Amino acid sequence: MHLKKLFALILLLFTLQLVAMAKPEALRVEPAFWWAGMASPDLQLMLHGPDIGNLKPELQHEGIVVKDVIKVSNPNYLFLNIDISKASAGKFRLQLKDGNRVVHKYTYELKERKAGSSQRQGFDNSDVIYLITPDRFANGNPKNDNVKSMAEKANRSDKSGRHGGDLEGIIQHLDYLKDMGFTALWVNPVLENNQQNTSYHGYSTTDYYKVDPRFGDNAQYVALSEKADERGIKLIMDMIPNHIGSEHWWMDDLPTEDWLNYQDNYKQTNHRREAIQDPHAAAYDRNLHTQGWFVESMPDLNQENELLAQYLIQNAIWWIEYANLGGIRVDTYSYSYPPFMTEWTRRIMEEYPNFNIVGEEWSLNPAIVAYWQRGKKNPNGYTSYLPSLMDFPVQNALVAALRDDETGWDTGWLHLYAMLANDFQYADPGNLVVFPDNHDMDRIYTQLNQDAALTKLALTYILTTRGIPQLYYGTEILMHNDAPGDHGIIRTDFPGGWEGDKINAFTGQRLTEEQRQMQEFTKKLLNWRKNTEAVQTGKLTHYAPYKGVYAYFRVQGDQKVMVILNKNEKPYDLALDKFAAQLNGKTKGVDAITGKTYQLDKKALALPPKAPLVLELQ
Amino acid sequence: MHLKKLFALILLLFTLQLVAMAKPEALRVEPAFWWAGMASPDLQLMLHGPDIGNLKPELQHEGIVVKDVIKVSNPNYLFLNIDISKASAGKFRLQLKDGNRVVHKYTYELKERKAGSSQRQGFDNSDVIYLITPDRFANGNPKNDNVKSMAEKANRSDKSGRHGGDLEGIIQHLDYLKDMGFTALWVNPVLENNQQNTSYHGYSTTDYYKVDPRFGDNAQYVALSEKADERGIKLIMDMIPNHIGSEHWWMDDLPTEDWLNYQDNYKQTNHRREAIQDPHAAAYDRNLHTQGWFVESMPDLNQENELLAQYLIQNAIWWIEYANLGGIRVDTYSYSYPPFMTEWTRRIMEEYPNFNIVGEEWSLNPAIVAYWQRGKKNPNGYTSYLPSLMDFPVQNALVAALRDDETGWDTGWLHLYAMLANDFQYADPGNLVVFPDNHDMDRIYTQLNQDAALTKLALTYILTTRGIPQLYYGTEILMHNDAPGDHGIIRTDFPGGWEGDKINAFTGQRLTEEQRQMQEFTKKLLNWRKNTEAVQTGKLTHYAPYKGVYAYFRVQGDQKVMVILNKNEKPYDLALDKFAAQLNGKTKGVDAITGKTYQLDKKALALPPKAPLVLELQ
Repeated sequence: MHLKKLFALILLLFTLQLVAMAKPEALRVEPAFWWAGMASPDLQLMLHGPDIGNLKPELQHEGIVVKDVIKVSNPNYLFLNIDISKASAGKFRLQLKDGNRVVHKYTYELKERKAGSSQRQGFDNSDVIYLITPDRFANGNPKNDNVKSMAEKANRSDKSGRHGGDLEGIIQHLDYLKDMGFTALWVNPVLENNQQNTSYHGYSTTDYYKVDPRFGDNAQYVALSEKADERGIKLIMDMIPNHIGSEHWWMDDLPTEDWLNYQDNYKQTNHRREAIQDPHAAAYDRNLHTQGWFVESMPDLNQENELLAQYLIQNAIWWIEYANLGGIRVDTYSYSYPPFMTEWTRRIMEEYPNFNIVGEEWSLNPAIVAYWQRGKKNPNGYTSYLPSLMDFPVQNALVAALRDDETGWDTGWLHLYAMLANDFQYADPGNLVVFPDNHDMDRIYTQLNQDAALTKLALTYILTTRGIPQLYYGTEILMHNDAPGDHGIIRTDFPGGWEGDKINAFTGQRLTEEQRQMQEFTKKLLNWRKNTEAVQTGKLTHYAPYKGVYAYFRVQGDQKVMVILNKNEKPYDLALDKFAAQLNGKTKGVDAITGKTYQLDKKALALPPKAPLVLELQ
Repeated sequence: MHLKKLFALILLLFTLQLVAMAKPEALRVEPAFWWAGMASPDLQLMLHGPDIGNLKPELQHEGIVVKDVIKVSNPNYLFLNIDISKASAGKFRLQLKDGNRVVHKYTYELKERKAGSSQRQGFDNSDVIYLITPDRFANGNPKNDNVKSMAEKANRSDKSGRHGGDLEGIIQHLDYLKDMGFTALWVNPVLENNQQNTSYHGYSTTDYYKVDPRFGDNAQYVALSEKADERGIKLIMDMIPNHIGSEHWWMDDLPTEDWLNYQDNYKQTNHRREAIQDPHAAAYDRNLHTQGWFVESMPDLNQENELLAQYLIQNAIWWIEYANLGGIRVDTYSYSYPPFMTEWTRRIMEEYPNFNIVGEEWSLNPAIVAYWQRGKKNPNGYTSYLPSLMDFPVQNALVAALRDDETGWDTGWLHLYAMLANDFQYADPGNLVVFPDNHDMDRIYTQLNQDAALTKLALTYILTTRGIPQLYYGTEILMHNDAPGDHGIIRTDFPGGWEGDKINAFTGQRLTEEQRQMQEFTKKLLNWRKNTEAVQTGKLTHYAPYKGVYAYFRVQGDQKVMVILNKNEKPYDLALDKFAAQLNGKTKGVDAITGKTYQLDKKALALPPKAPLVLELQ
C-alpha cells in the first residue's frame, strides 16, 4: 500500500515534469486555415501536439491529395504536404489516429478568396507611405495596455518600454492620414512579441500567426486594413523571415535539430553583407553574416530547412490573403539564406503578380542594394524576385548633401546628384522606396541639426524624386530625438495619441508655429503629389548642381514639373539658359507649395533663399 | 610711281601677314612612315602644306590602293585613305601635283615589322610598374635642359618649372629599377609640350609624333625602350587622346571647323563623369563633361570628327610599333568622346591582342570605373575594349583604412575590405592597376601623416592584393610633399638624379635610416613578388577585418601566401581557427620580408605591432 502510494507520487511528479517541459496538450495546426483557388497547388500543414509523430493523419475532402507525411526528429511534430489544386472551398475533418482510435480532431477550412485578390495592386509610385511604430502612435484602447498572458507590461515612463499604442489608435486616426495625403501605411511589426523586455518594437516574433494582444487581435488588424482601404490607403505589413524572438513557442520544443542556425551555440552575425557579392570573401564570413544571430534575443532561422522555408512562405501569403495587404516590408533582407529569399519572393509574386514588396538592405552601396532587386543580372547568377528596396544610399546622400557645404567639386548637393546617377545599376530604380529617415535612425530634423528649412528641402526632394516616398510618423511636425541613435527616443509618442496629451498633433493643439507650418507644408505637397502624375511616374532629368542649387524636371506627356532646391542662405539668380531643352516652350511655373507664379521666359529666375520651388510648368 | 610703291608696300605687308599666320612652307606627312603587315588594311595620311587642298595626290607602290582623297574646309590639308593590305615593305614616292607639275614630293616608307610584334605581351600581373615624371627623376643630359626652339627654359628653383630631367637620366638608372625589382616603367608624357609655362608635366601635347627635345628625341625614346627591355622592363607610354596643348601646331591652322570642341568659345568641362552612366542626366551635363576643356591651355579634341579619330588611333599604334611599347596609360579617359574610345581601344587591341592599356578614370565609385573595362555588360549597351583601369576606389579606401580608427562596424580596415568586395562589378578585377599614390595626388607618406609603419602596410597591400601594382618614383625612399595638393612639390626631384645632389637615393648616400629601411623593404618585397606566382595571379580570399587586423590569402596551386596586416600599435594574438579552410595542412609560414618562420599549427599567432607579415606557407 505504502509502495503503491509512492509509485503514484512518482508518477504524478513525472507527469508534472512533463507538463513543465511544455509538452503540447492540444493540437496546433498552422496555417489554421487556407484558401481554395490559389496559384500554388501545394499546402504544407505543420501539426504540433504531444507525440503526434507516430499518429496517422487522415484528411477527407474531395480533391485534396495528401502527398507526403513528414516526421521529424521531434515526435511532437508532423508535417503534411497536400495538393489542394483540385479542392473547392469548404470545411473538412483532419484527424490523427492511433490505429483506429482518433486522438486529435481538427476542422480545417479552405476559404473562398475575395474577388480580385490575386490581381491586387501593391503600393506603387502613386503612393506615399506613412510609417508608424504602433506602440508609439496612439493608444486607442487603454484596456489592452496590459495583458495577463503577455510578460511585459506597459510603462510609458520607460523609453524602451511599452507605451500602449495599438491598432485601435491607428484606426481612430486614419482620417488624419487621409487628410494629410498619405495613401499607404507601413506599420512596424504587430505580431506577438511575448518577450521579457523591449518587446514594443515588434521585431522578436513569438507567434507568426497572431497579432500581439497588446496591439489588438487578428480581426482588428483586418479591420485596420479594411478601414484604411476605404480611405484609399494600402496596408503594408512588416515581416521578419530572418529571425524570431527567443520566447517564440518553437523555442521550447524545436521541430528539428537544424531549425535554427547555431542552434546550440549562439554566435552573432558579423553584418558583413558585402561578403555575399564579394568574389574574394571567405565562406566563413559569408556564412556568418546570414547564419549568425542578429542579437542574442533573436534566434536566427535556418531557412535551408525546407519545412521551415515552406512555413515562412505560406505565412507571408496567409497574411496577404487574410488581411488584404497592399504590400510587405521585409526586415534584414540579406541576413536570410539568399536562395530562400529568392523562393519566398518568387512564390509571393507568383500568387500576386501586381503586388509590391520592399526589402531592407541597409547598405550605402547602391551596387549591393541593386543586387537584390528583381530583374538585376548578377555576375554570380543570383536571381531575386524582390520588386523594391529601401533606398538607403539616397537617404544617406540626401543628408550629406544638406549638411555639407558647397565649396568643392564633390561636396554639398553633389553627394546626392552623384548618388542618384547610380540608378544605372538598378533594374528598376523607379520602384525603390525613398525616405528621409525611419524608425532605426535619427529623426531627419535631428540629422539636419534641427534646421526646418533644410528639412523642407529634404521632404521636397523625397516627395518629388523618382521612387515611392515614405515618411516616418511625426516627421510632419518636426519630431526630433535629442539623444542621437537612441531608438527609444527616436520612437517617441506622437503627441495627441494618448488621453491627456497636452500637445495634440491631430488637432494642431499647442503645436509650435514651425510645427504647424511643416505639417501644412507636408499636407500641401502630399495632396498635390496625389494628383500630379508627372511627379509620380514622369521621367526624371536632373542637372548637375551648381552654386548650391539643384534643379530637376519630372515629365509625363505634356505635364512638366520643375523642382528647384536652393540651399543658399541668400536669394539666388538662377540662369535659365541651360534648362532650355526641358523648358521648351513653357513660359511660367506655378509653385505647388505657395501657389505663386514664376516667369520662366527670361534670363534668370530669382530664387527665394534656402527654400524649394516645385513649379508646375505652363 | 608713288602709288606703285604704296601698292608694293601693301603687297609686302599682306605677304608678311600671311607668313605671320603660319602658312605651312613644306609638306608635313603624318604618320611619317608606317609598317607593312598590320592587322588593319587601312592607313590614313594627313598631309599639311600651303594650299595643297587642290593638288592631286599620286602614290605609286604595288599593292597600295588609294581609296579616298578627302579635302576639308582648310585648303592646307589633304587626307588620304589608302589600303595597304596587299603592300609589302618598302619605300615609295608620294607626290602632289598641280596638273602635270609636281609641287611636293615625299618618300613614304612601309617598314618591316619586328618579329612577334603583334603578339607582344603587355604589362600584366607579373609586373610591378614604376611611375616616373621624367622632368623630375634624373638629368642625364644637362645639354638639353634648354633648347632654342622650345619656349620654356629650365629653372630648377621654380617648383612648377622645368628641372632638366630627361630620357637619358632614366636610361642611366635602369639598373636601379631592375635591382629594385620593377618590371614595368610608366613615364609621364614625353611628347613635345612647347607651351609657355608649366610644360614639365607633359600633358599639353604640341606634336603627337615627336618627343620633346628637352627630354631627348624619338630615337632616344626607342633606346630607352630597348635598354629597359634588356633588363626585363616593359615601357608604358602615357597617352592623351582627349586634348592637346594650346601651342599645338594645329592651333595656328586648324584642319576643320569641328576639330576642337568649343572651337570658338572656350568652355570648361564640368567634370561630371557620372553623367555618362546616369539615366537621369541632362544631355547638357553629359556633353559638357566630354566637350568642355580640361583647362583653358588644353584645347579639347572633337573625336566625333572621323579624320581626327583616325589620326589619334594611328598615332597610338605608331608609337607601340615604333617604340616597341609594353603598354599604354590613357589620360582623362572618360573626357574623350566615349564611342571614340571604344574604337581607339578596339583598334589597338585588334593589332595587339595580348597588349595592355590602363585608363585613368578618377572616380571613387567602382561602378563607374567598371563601366569602362572590356567585358563589362553595361545597361546602356556601351562597349569598351579597354583592358585595365587605374583602381582609384581601392587607392582611396586603402588610405581611409589606414587613417581611420577601428572603433566602428564600418571604420578602419573595413573601408578597404568593403571596397574590394566591389570586385563583383568588374569584368576583370585582376587586371586593374593598384597604387598607393601617383603624380596627381599627395605622396602616400604624406597621406599617411608621415607614418612609415603605415606606409609599409600600404605598400605591402598594394604589392600583394589582386591587380598590377604601380609605385610612384621616390615612394621607396618616403618622398613626401609638405604642401598638400601642390603638384610641383609632389613631383619633387628624385635625390641623386642631378649632378651635385647631396643626397643620392641611387647610391643610398645620406638617406636617413628610415628611408634606407623603406628602400630595402620595397626591394625585398618586389623581388620576392617577382618570383612568387601565387601573389601575382593566385586566387585571393580575404577575411573580414577584426580588431585592427586584416588578413588574406593568395593561392596558386599548392603555393599559398598569407598576408596579415596588423594596424594595432601593440602586438596582437591572432586566433587562427577561422582560417582553417585556407591553412588546411600548412603548419608554418616564412615571412617574405624578414625571413622569420612562424608556427601556424596553434591557436593563435603573435603578431608584431603595426607591421605586415607576408607568409609563404609550408
